[in-house]
Amino acid sequence: MKIIIVGATGTMGKHLVSALEKEHEIIKVASKDGDILTDITSTESIENMFKQVGSFDALISTAGPTHVGPWKTLTDTEFRKGVEGKMMGQINLVLIGQHYINPKGSFTLITGALTNDPQKNFANASAANGAVEGFVRGASIELENGIRINAVSPTVIEDSPQYFPYFPGEIPTTMRELEYMFRKSVFGAGTGQIIKSH
Amino acid sequence: MKIIIVGATGTMGKHLVSALEKEHEIIKVASKDGDILTDITSTESIENMFKQVGSFDALISTAGPTHVGPWKTLTDTEFRKGVEGKMMGQINLVLIGQHYINPKGSFTLITGALTNDPQKNFANASAANGAVEGFVRGASIELENGIRINAVSPTVIEDSPQYFPYFPGEIPTTMRELEYMFRKSVFGAGTGQIIKSH
Repeated sequence: MKIIIVGATGTMGKHLVSALEKEHEIIKVASKDGDILTDITSTESIENMFKQVGSFDALISTAGPTHVGPWKTLTDTEFRKGVEGKMMGQINLVLIGQHYINPKGSFTLITGALTNDPQKNFANASAANGAVEGFVRGASIELENGIRINAVSPTVIEDSPQYFPYFPGEIPTTMRELEYMFRKSVFGAGTGQIIKSH
Repeated sequence: MKIIIVGATGTMGKHLVSALEKEHEIIKVASKDGDILTDITSTESIENMFKQVGSFDALISTAGPTHVGPWKTLTDTEFRKGVEGKMMGQINLVLIGQHYINPKGSFTLITGALTNDPQKNFANASAANGAVEGFVRGASIELENGIRINAVSPTVIEDSPQYFPYFPGEIPTTMRELEYMFRKSVFGAGTGQIIKSH
């Protein structure tokens, strides 16, 4: 299977590349150090990436920039980080990528438990996640030719301990569980699903 | 109670004004024909509106422009209608309005069943709704001084029969039920809730 991993050089992306590259052709897309350098906040950059890749079978996105910071100084300006990054960046990967993906292909986007379980400083991520999850449900009934779309929604990630203090009482999602959530989306048959960690 | 109704001249807004104006001071905000004309896609226009209103007890928003149209020609450009309108328009009403609202005040935003029950042509609304609902949960744990925030999530509205064909099998939300959903948010004690129709 030819699989694009967007955010391939991040914590999640590296793990997924390593887990999937033995059996699949992996195209590593990232803002730095990828096979293809892409700025997901630019529709032109996304279009160029797909033109270089050509047709593909699955796209996995682990790219989710959002603003983390105190509520009282939160304005439209800070909020745009998640709007342009985790939200529209991922949505545009699908709106543009649908014209390049093979029949029966799949899109898997990243959201997170913050959609339903908010934490202080993360209102921007809660909104971006909610947008992506709503979009995934909407897109799942529009995509044709057996093309599927799901979101993977972990809690705080095992390999990102720097975030643990922000998530009191949240059991971290192990890298193995995260990998299997993505496997369920890419190799399973479900569509329009929000795949949550246990 | 001094209540701002944003979208006061729309189908929902008119009903709410009529239902609440006997017992409360209502400030009618709309893009046309309101007491105060406001473009919610402009943070400057929102800030000017709050400066004119001064302190208030509750803000109700029924303002939700989104793009309705076929999936295959949906691009970033069309998608921005919901991003700037129903999503960031409403989010900015809260981010800015928090500096003007009285202690124990409340914000009530509008979403809709499309967050979880998608319909064809409405992926933009599903995403915008999901964003607003995630934001409401995030904001509810950040707002201080007893200030609350909820979303009202109806299905298709009884008084908007032009939309019925887009929502097969969806029982319309009556205007009375809609009014009571807003009453629950404004006059109840809940926060961070997504108030759904039955």
